[in-house]
Amino acid sequence: MHTAVQSHPAGRTGAPAKAIRVAVAGATGFTGQELLRILARHPAVTIVAATASSTGGVRKLPALAHIFTGEITPLDRAALASQAELVFLALPDKAAAELAPELLEAGVRVIDLSGAFRLRDDAQRGRWYPETHTLPKGLAYGLTELERSSVAAARMVANPGCYPTAALLPLRPLLAAGVIAENADIVIDAKSGVSGAGKTPSERTHFSEVHGSVSAYGVFGHRHGAEIEQGAGRQVNFVPHLMPLDRGILSTTYVRVTPGTTEETLAGVYERAYGSEPFIRLTGAALPEIKHVAHTNFCDVGWRVDASGRAVLVSVIDNLLKGASGQAVQNMNAMLGIDETTGLL
Amino acid sequence: MHTAVQSHPAGRTGAPAKAIRVAVAGATGFTGQELLRILARHPAVTIVAATASSTGGVRKLPALAHIFTGEITPLDRAALASQAELVFLALPDKAAAELAPELLEAGVRVIDLSGAFRLRDDAQRGRWYPETHTLPKGLAYGLTELERSSVAAARMVANPGCYPTAALLPLRPLLAAGVIAENADIVIDAKSGVSGAGKTPSERTHFSEVHGSVSAYGVFGHRHGAEIEQGAGRQVNFVPHLMPLDRGILSTTYVRVTPGTTEETLAGVYERAYGSEPFIRLTGAALPEIKHVAHTNFCDVGWRVDASGRAVLVSVIDNLLKGASGQAVQNMNAMLGIDETTGLL
Amino acid sequence: MHTAVQSHPAGRTGAPAKAIRVAVAGATGFTGQELLRILARHPAVTIVAATASSTGGVRKLPALAHIFTGEITPLDRAALASQAELVFLALPDKAAAELAPELLEAGVRVIDLSGAFRLRDDAQRGRWYPETHTLPKGLAYGLTELERSSVAAARMVANPGCYPTAALLPLRPLLAAGVIAENADIVIDAKSGVSGAGKTPSERTHFSEVHGSVSAYGVFGHRHGAEIEQGAGRQVNFVPHLMPLDRGILSTTYVRVTPGTTEETLAGVYERAYGSEPFIRLTGAALPEIKHVAHTNFCDVGWRVDASGRAVLVSVIDNLLKGASGQAVQNMNAMLGIDETTGLL
Amino acid sequence: MHTAVQSHPAGRTGAPAKAIRVAVAGATGFTGQELLRILARHPAVTIVAATASSTGGVRKLPALAHIFTGEITPLDRAALASQAELVFLALPDKAAAELAPELLEAGVRVIDLSGAFRLRDDAQRGRWYPETHTLPKGLAYGLTELERSSVAAARMVANPGCYPTAALLPLRPLLAAGVIAENADIVIDAKSGVSGAGKTPSERTHFSEVHGSVSAYGVFGHRHGAEIEQGAGRQVNFVPHLMPLDRGILSTTYVRVTPGTTEETLAGVYERAYGSEPFIRLTGAALPEIKHVAHTNFCDVGWRVDASGRAVLVSVIDNLLKGASGQAVQNMNAMLGIDETTGLL
Repeated sequence: MHTAVQSHPAGRTGAPAKAIRVAVAGATGFTGQELLRILARHPAVTIVAATASSTGGVRKLPALAHIFTGEITPLDRAALASQAELVFLALPDKAAAELAPELLEAGVRVIDLSGAFRLRDDAQRGRWYPETHTLPKGLAYGLTELERSSVAAARMVANPGCYPTAALLPLRPLLAAGVIAENADIVIDAKSGVSGAGKTPSERTHFSEVHGSVSAYGVFGHRHGAEIEQGAGRQVNFVPHLMPLDRGILSTTYVRVTPGTTEETLAGVYERAYGSEPFIRLTGAALPEIKHVAHTNFCDVGWRVDASGRAVLVSVIDNLLKGASGQAVQNMNAMLGIDETTGLL
Repeated sequence: MHTAVQSHPAGRTGAPAKAIRVAVAGATGFTGQELLRILARHPAVTIVAATASSTGGVRKLPALAHIFTGEITPLDRAALASQAELVFLALPDKAAAELAPELLEAGVRVIDLSGAFRLRDDAQRGRWYPETHTLPKGLAYGLTELERSSVAAARMVANPGCYPTAALLPLRPLLAAGVIAENADIVIDAKSGVSGAGKTPSERTHFSEVHGSVSAYGVFGHRHGAEIEQGAGRQVNFVPHLMPLDRGILSTTYVRVTPGTTEETLAGVYERAYGSEPFIRLTGAALPEIKHVAHTNFCDVGWRVDASGRAVLVSVIDNLLKGASGQAVQNMNAMLGIDETTGLL
Repeated sequence: MHTAVQSHPAGRTGAPAKAIRVAVAGATGFTGQELLRILARHPAVTIVAATASSTGGVRKLPALAHIFTGEITPLDRAALASQAELVFLALPDKAAAELAPELLEAGVRVIDLSGAFRLRDDAQRGRWYPETHTLPKGLAYGLTELERSSVAAARMVANPGCYPTAALLPLRPLLAAGVIAENADIVIDAKSGVSGAGKTPSERTHFSEVHGSVSAYGVFGHRHGAEIEQGAGRQVNFVPHLMPLDRGILSTTYVRVTPGTTEETLAGVYERAYGSEPFIRLTGAALPEIKHVAHTNFCDVGWRVDASGRAVLVSVIDNLLKGASGQAVQNMNAMLGIDETTGLL
Repeated sequence: MHTAVQSHPAGRTGAPAKAIRVAVAGATGFTGQELLRILARHPAVTIVAATASSTGGVRKLPALAHIFTGEITPLDRAALASQAELVFLALPDKAAAELAPELLEAGVRVIDLSGAFRLRDDAQRGRWYPETHTLPKGLAYGLTELERSSVAAARMVANPGCYPTAALLPLRPLLAAGVIAENADIVIDAKSGVSGAGKTPSERTHFSEVHGSVSAYGVFGHRHGAEIEQGAGRQVNFVPHLMPLDRGILSTTYVRVTPGTTEETLAGVYERAYGSEPFIRLTGAALPEIKHVAHTNFCDVGWRVDASGRAVLVSVIDNLLKGASGQAVQNMNAMLGIDETTGLL
């Protein structure tokens, strides 16, 4: 008799009641599966639905066996709206643009991991997300550390893109503190793993194309560039690169700082902005590496400044966690008013 | 004011008191860091010491910032024995062979991740682990699912090797059920990631040697072969291979089954052995893959049998978790009499 | 004025006239591109056509710029037959099964890299390649080192599969020498890079599925198993595995040797079989590794034997070269009666 | 009797006599082995010596079996000077700084792959290569396409660093043409494979540190930055990054162009500079990728310009070939007055 395993796979004893009913729409993609992985262990929620537009007859996710024991079901909008109190949308932009208003209308809170509702400017949104006609009321942009109060009060959160998360977390406090020279370019050279391209097979994501290679893409034409510019409030020169790894983004930002600004100046700015943040780790001149944040919700930030006023900022995240599903749950925690690290640390 | 982060990095509310004082000796290697990662979040324990033979002046582990906030300290045997109730040894064989008896003598329980105490036969142990002179009383071999009762009663656990864990979990139930032909070879072709070779840089672990390559090693001369033969009770032909990935083992076992034995026969045997195990997932003819178990404590097991009596068993684990630190904590949970999945699922 | 570059991209001075007119049907796949790369530099041939079933409007291959300066054209069977003296078929099985007889009929020699004509037994071929109705006259199986005289005399060569090449080169001399025990299993555990799966994107070849993972596939049901059994003349237990690398196969073969057979015995057998072969390198007990043969036409072979009669053979090839396009050119050289290493060493 | 293989492993018939006696000092490192691989097949040279400071008793290189059949011998300076007409130095900086003057003194031509003689400015060289006291007469900087006439006339060539090769080839023609804005920063974000770090094992090159990770290093303090600034004639902001691949560099350069400069402007500049170069391939807006140049001596260059005057240049090379051994042989060809592509295309 081994009592140890009798309670499997139930949660931990003593945890708060799994009171909040949540659902994941788009549960079979990379971000959907990560959401299920986190939510299945989350002490405050119960997963009432995990849907896919087409289940292909497969109802179980092998990687999640013994973790999430529910089934994947076909998307049923009415059922979703009636069963769940909060729905995560891990859908293509168009599908999210259509579903979100319906759910809000039905009184359901929404955390949208697509790009459909990220851009506030109508012209920009019209260019990159033409399927999104209007922005709902009660919408917050979910860069949690920088938008915490609006997230807490929101009915819906537009979860940031992975590149914008990695770029804006190091950049925003410096812009706010006025230590970045106004007349100089901001260059953001980002390096991403392949999971950021999603699960659909393509020539671009074929192993033989990526292994042993590196490539730039989307120069002057990546919609995350518009999102970064929205967050930064000025033009940036953003170029993403595809790397031969699965998970993670390293973002290298090149700026000019104002006269007299040193590494210590930046250390002070960052300490004030992020010193008590659980998911932001300041590494200073010991620049961060992707391996330290893979499979975590951390964003590590390091920086160097030289005597001529050049500054290099380096930030790293796991694109599927802090860059997507992890931050989405962090936002949920903020919306629910519980410890933001719940289920994530 | 954001109350959400005030409690960081403390544990979850409602968890049982962190009553048990544990220590990790050898905290900076791959398995030591994984132990800290798990134990820091474990609701039943407090880490009272994390030691290294040489800290090189570095007291903090960047990857564990905000998770394990303690410092790495030089190994102090007396302090260890007086402070901790249970010590994990993530040390070289020789160091473990020396330290374990001291700790046991002082009344401290020990979970040893080295190979020093795994082999019961004096001749075999003398060949592979000559520095280990005698086996202490109260020693269990920690292949948890198959040795649960002796682990629960043990003062010390010899945590199994990574290859033996991956090989014996699929093999043992079939041997016990008598469905494997007695006169035929058992071939175990194992494929491992590089972290199994440890953290010390060498030509063998140089990225440029491993990337884009595969190699066999240790043919007829790997000490894990002796450990597998101890567990199987007969000769096996075990050949490990080094793969270009970091974490994970896939073990392919080739056997002949007794007449009349089918895939369904094996399914029945496995279901009886492992049907209620939280960390063993039976995949049947859908053979398992490393990516499904990486960063988890699962062992996934699949199998195929053909009409001519050939059987192929495929098992996968994360060598650093189920093959080392994860199983070590699973053993600790069994020793403490708490839910075996605590801190691991 | 720099005269050095004026002759670019022409070949080397003093080379024999590029007299033989060759064509590649299926020039955009992995093996097709490798063929072009080799043939463009080959001193004895001129590429008169490189075709694709659909060029998608793209006529140039970026990776081959400045190497093969010709264009990719739509497949025109009549033109192919009239322009070329020898055609390489790097096509799907069905397309090769149809095109080969036409070309032979027109007096054109054919080297077929598909599997359509590899199996001599009608029943086996009917099972694995049902689109191939009859075998043409003058057909040789192009495992060059072992079939050299029939290749030299052939009108058409069925180029071996990648796994059979890696498996049969070490196995065949031992079988011929009678040193393998007759009543024991032959287990062939093969590990392959992803390029062996071809260029068409699929879930199986998605970078995120393969990176950090290993998987077995095709157990008891891979057509290369039938091809290996044809070459070995007896049953083998062949299981291929997909590895996270692009190019290369490592094949581990487990056999029982006859009493008295030692490593030296095998060394003698191999030396007699392959001692003067340019593309086979015998490494003995220093087992070979994929990185030593990647981007070459070599097959490296090593072996170990123990006192109990177990033997482990390890062979490595580049699946796109010795396992496909390199061996195809080696066969062409043999057919043309020129130095077999021409264009390959 | 198979005559095909009798001539193995001799070279191609009809090639010019292998008249020039060359040697490789430092033959066991990554670049040394690549040199041997190329030179062994080169029709104009004979390798008279391949040396190592310590052969460790190993005289043969497994990867080069059947290609370079000579032995690795201990470095003997006098023998080297007397036997060879031209010596490649693939040595650490200090060893090269000492050996080069001796060889020149003895009338031997030298191609130095170390950094010892790359910097012309005494202050810069004193900072980065203090062991190099003076620059010899007849020294050329071997960025072949841009220094062809001085290389052809040189007694010694300082072969460029890998990063400077990748950075200067796209940058120099634009600077010469005056299309880059003078008052704006030049940011060079370079991504390199691990072989650039050399063969000595270290924590930095451990597979488990690199796999699944990306990191920046050497910010404001990499000696290749000084070499790039020497070539560019102005300050650049150069940051190298380590990528999880073995071979290859992708360099992304961010500049501001002068008013009116478009992508077509740049196309014209590049076409005039490189239109007839065998080893430079201009890809325009179709940005280049490392996989297209791996295992070749090519440098592929692409570019994008937007209406606001931002330009992004992307260049790729194989760091061991165009970034080291390939360019070294290209320089040798230029010095010998033979076709620059000999042995390289």
